[in-house]
Parts: sequence; structure tokens; C-alpha cells
Amino acid sequence: MNIVLSRDSQVRGMENTVTNAEKYFGQFCSLLAAYTRKTARLRDKADQLVRQLVDFANTETPELRAAVRSFAEDLAKVQDYRQAEVERLETKVVTPLKLYGAQIKQTRAEIKKFKRVRNNEIKQLEKLEKLRQKSPSDRQMISQAETRVQRASVDASRTTQQLEETIDTFQKQKLKDLQKIFSDFITIEMVFHAKAVEVYSSAFQALESYDLERDLEDFRAKMRGVYGLYDPRPLTDTASSLASLGSLAGQSAESPIRNQRKEEEASEDDSTDEDPVEDLRGQRQGLHQ
Amino acid sequence: MNIVLSRDSQVRGMENTVTNAEKYFGQFCSLLAAYTRKTARLRDKADQLVRQLVDFANTETPELRAAVRSFAEDLAKVQDYRQAEVERLETKVVTPLKLYGAQIKQTRAEIKKFKRVRNNEIKQLEKLEKLRQKSPSDRQMISQAETRVQRASVDASRTTQQLEETIDTFQKQKLKDLQKIFSDFITIEMVFHAKAVEVYSSAFQALESYDLERDLEDFRAKMRGVYGLYDPRPLTDTASSLASLGSLAGQSAESPIRNQRKEEEASEDDSTDEDPVEDLRGQRQGLHQ
Repeated sequence: MNIVLSRDSQVRGMENTVTNAEKYFGQFCSLLAAYTRKTARLRDKADQLVRQLVDFANTETPELRAAVRSFAEDLAKVQDYRQAEVERLETKVVTPLKLYGAQIKQTRAEIKKFKRVRNNEIKQLEKLEKLRQKSPSDRQMISQAETRVQRASVDASRTTQQLEETIDTFQKQKLKDLQKIFSDFITIEMVFHAKAVEVYSSAFQALESYDLERDLEDFRAKMRGVYGLYDPRPLTDTASSLASLGSLAGQSAESPIRNQRKEEEASEDDSTDEDPVEDLRGQRQGLHQ
Repeated sequence: MNIVLSRDSQVRGMENTVTNAEKYFGQFCSLLAAYTRKTARLRDKADQLVRQLVDFANTETPELRAAVRSFAEDLAKVQDYRQAEVERLETKVVTPLKLYGAQIKQTRAEIKKFKRVRNNEIKQLEKLEKLRQKSPSDRQMISQAETRVQRASVDASRTTQQLEETIDTFQKQKLKDLQKIFSDFITIEMVFHAKAVEVYSSAFQALESYDLERDLEDFRAKMRGVYGLYDPRPLTDTASSLASLGSLAGQSAESPIRNQRKEEEASEDDSTDEDPVEDLRGQRQGLHQ
């Protein structure tokens, strides 16, 4: 294998290395940027859910309100960790991949320079070949052409060496960066998932301890106490009944929060047999005292 | 507070309960469905990344190929768990929330029925009132009207009781379902995140053990061995050099896989001083034997 052929083959090998890196790093970059964006969208949806949960909690009975708020807070915490995940993916994964563009540009310039020098070598070789065919007896001309070929060949050799060093550095950096970027990706994801497990574990325990029977009692007390169902009093004054109905027509429905305040006025005859947690009753606010 | 007024107030309380549930469960449903869809999109992006990683691995030196493939497999595993997460969110969170529509419809029908019965009670009350004003002395008519009011009142009372039971069941089911759905959401997320931590932990270890120096050696061997850089032979036959160049022009660039096969032909003089893991060298394939 002679030098010119080997150099031509080598430069294609180097171009392949750079083109391959350009292609795949570009794809990794855009896919990981998209992955990061989708993660941010997921965070946005969860944030919306958090806001709705808080709104909903404010319309509910105290136990459920506390349970839903606690769930919303935990869900918000996971989104904070997801936000940190997004920022770290941007900084430690997407940005380094983007920086590859510059590195590849520089390496491409080195290859271009090498190609110019190599083309000169080929040109000198062609001139020498023509001389040998046209004037095989002109020893002086052939000798001069041979000198120019040797000079061009030395140039090409030196440039090739520089190029090889550049490609070597490029490849070394590529492997290092690839390992670093993927390791960082894994670490960022791992930290996020571990934090999520931690938060959801405590969220699960909180939700398990939610006592829906208490809320049902509150709800029943509200329904019966405030609205006075099963009121045993007979109809005596229909005129005032109608007057009351008329005045109600202009009122808006009572807000649930106002209803909640009124539950302390509830009668004591509501379904105490529905509550299996007699020992926790002391913590309740006034309803059964 | 008399019965008619209390019933009017009560039905509004019940309507509030149902309207509130309809509003928030509807929002939870669409937000959690969106959350599930965004999760599926994230899985899609990661799947694309997996495919690109596998493609890239096939163009690289053996050590990097193995490392990238292993990373791609782990990333694919996480996506399998994400797929399970998506399916479980659909089945155990989004679908039950959708089913609320039917439940709410039924409860609304009950409220409508109650309203009809209550309107009849009001109509009878109005008739009785008119009679009392127009013909206060017609005891028989007034007595009959009073009987109709009593009957309508009993009807309204019975229907109200049924409605209260319906709302009670509705509320109980709502609280139970809410606790169940949120618990399931947390469990599904927790399981996914825990699995992801597990897979990424092993992926991290695999990537940490990737030895880039070996790949660099392979790369250098390929560059020097195949392309014959620093070949000390002088130029002797320029004609055959040019002929070779000409024949190469019609060839496509060699595939990296073919290059990899050729690396075993590499010369032994490449930079052994670059490799700090002398003890691992025995595992390599032929290059330094």
C-alpha cells in the first residue's frame, strides 16, 4: 500500500469518524432535548393537577381537605424535583451535546486543510508522470519534478500527522464526553426517580391514614343539621313559608365553606354508629362534645 | 326553619355536592389523562433514543459498542416500565374517573325527581293560601286543601329521604373512590420510579466500567494499521499510485464494521503506554497477543 493511496483512505476514515459523530451526536442532542421538553410538559400537567387539587380541597370537609392538600403538596414536591431534573438535563446533557457542533467544525477545517495539501501532492505526481511520458530523456526536468513531489509529499506527511493528532484528540474527547454525558444522564434520572420514590412513599402513608368515615359524618351532619331534614314540626304558617321561599329565590347557593362553619351547630342525634374510631373522636372539633 | 325552606336549601346543598364532584372529577380526569399521554410521549422519545443508540453502537469500536448497547438496553427497560405505568394509569386512574360521569347522571336524575315532588308541595301550599285569603269562611274547601298539602308534604318528605340516601351513597362512594384512585396513582408512580432507580443503578455501574482507553487503542490501531500512516516506504511507482487513486474514486467509504474486522491486522507498535489497565489486557481480542 503506497502513501498517497493510504492517505486518501485515511482521510476518508477520519471524515467518517467526524461525520458519524456529527450525525449521532446531533440526533442524541435533539432527542435528549425533546426528552427534556416532554419531561417539562409532564411537570406542567402535574402542576395543573396540583392547583386543581388545592381548589378542590378548599371545597371539601376538613379530613378530606387535609388529605387532598397533603397529596397535592407531595405531588408538587415531585414536580420540584422534576424541575431540577429538567434543568440538570439541560445543563449537563443537552448543552454539552450542542457544543459538539463547534468541535466538529474545527475538526472539519483540519481535514479540509489536509485535503488541499494532499491535492498538491497528487498534482505534482501527475506533472511528474506526464513529464516521464512526454520527455523521458529530459533528466533535469524529471529530477526537478521529483524534488517537487518529494517536497509535497513531506508537506502531506506532516499535515497528515497533525491531522491524525487532531482526530486522535477528537476521538478521545468524544469517548470521554459520551461517557460523561450518559453517566450524567443516568445520575440525573436516578436522583429524580429516587426522590420521587421517597416523596410518594410518604404520600401513600398519608393517604392511607385518611379516615373517610369521619368525613361522611361531617357530611351527614351538614346535610341534616343545617338543612334540618326530618324536622318534626308541623306546618303552621304557610304564608311565612311562601315568603321565605320568595326571599330565597334572590339568594345564591350557600358556599361550602360557610356550610362547613355551620356544621358545629349540628344536632347530636346523627349516626354515631357509623364511626368505628371511637378513640380518635376527641380530636374532632366540637361536633360530638 | 320550616320544612319547605329546609328542603329548598337542602336540595341546593345536594346539587352543590354533585356539581362540585362533576367539576373536579372532570378536571382530575382530563388532567390525569393528559399526564398519562405526556408520559407516553416521554416513553416514545426515549424509545427513539434507544434506537439511535443501537444504530450508533453498531458503528463504534467493540468496547464502546458494548457499553452503548448496554446503556440502550437499560434505557429500553425503563421504557417498558414506563409503558406499564401508562397502562396502569389508564386502567386504574383515568377509567374510574371517567365512570364518574354515569354516577353523576344518575344522582342528577334523583335530584330532578325530588324537585318535581317539591314543586307539587309548593303548588298545594299556594292553593291553600289563596283559598284562605279569598274564602276564609269555606271550612270544607280549606280542609280539603290542607289534606292535599299534607299529602304533598308526606310525598316530599319520603322523596327527600330517598334523595338523602342517594346523596349519602354518592358521597361515600366519592370519598372511597377518591382515596382509591389517588392511592392507585401514588402506587403506580412509586412502582415505576422504584424500578427506574433499580435499572439506572445497574446502568450507571455498567457505564462506569467502560474503559475508553481500550477503545482509543482500537481506534488508533485502525487509523494506523489499516490506512498505513507513517509507512516508511519511498514513492517508487507513481503510475500505479494514480491508477489506485482512480479505482478508489468509484468505491464507497469502507463501512466501520469492515474496518473493525481489519483491526486485528494492526501493527504491534501502537501506543501501549496509553493503556493504564495492563491487567485487563488479557481479555482483549487478539490485538496485543
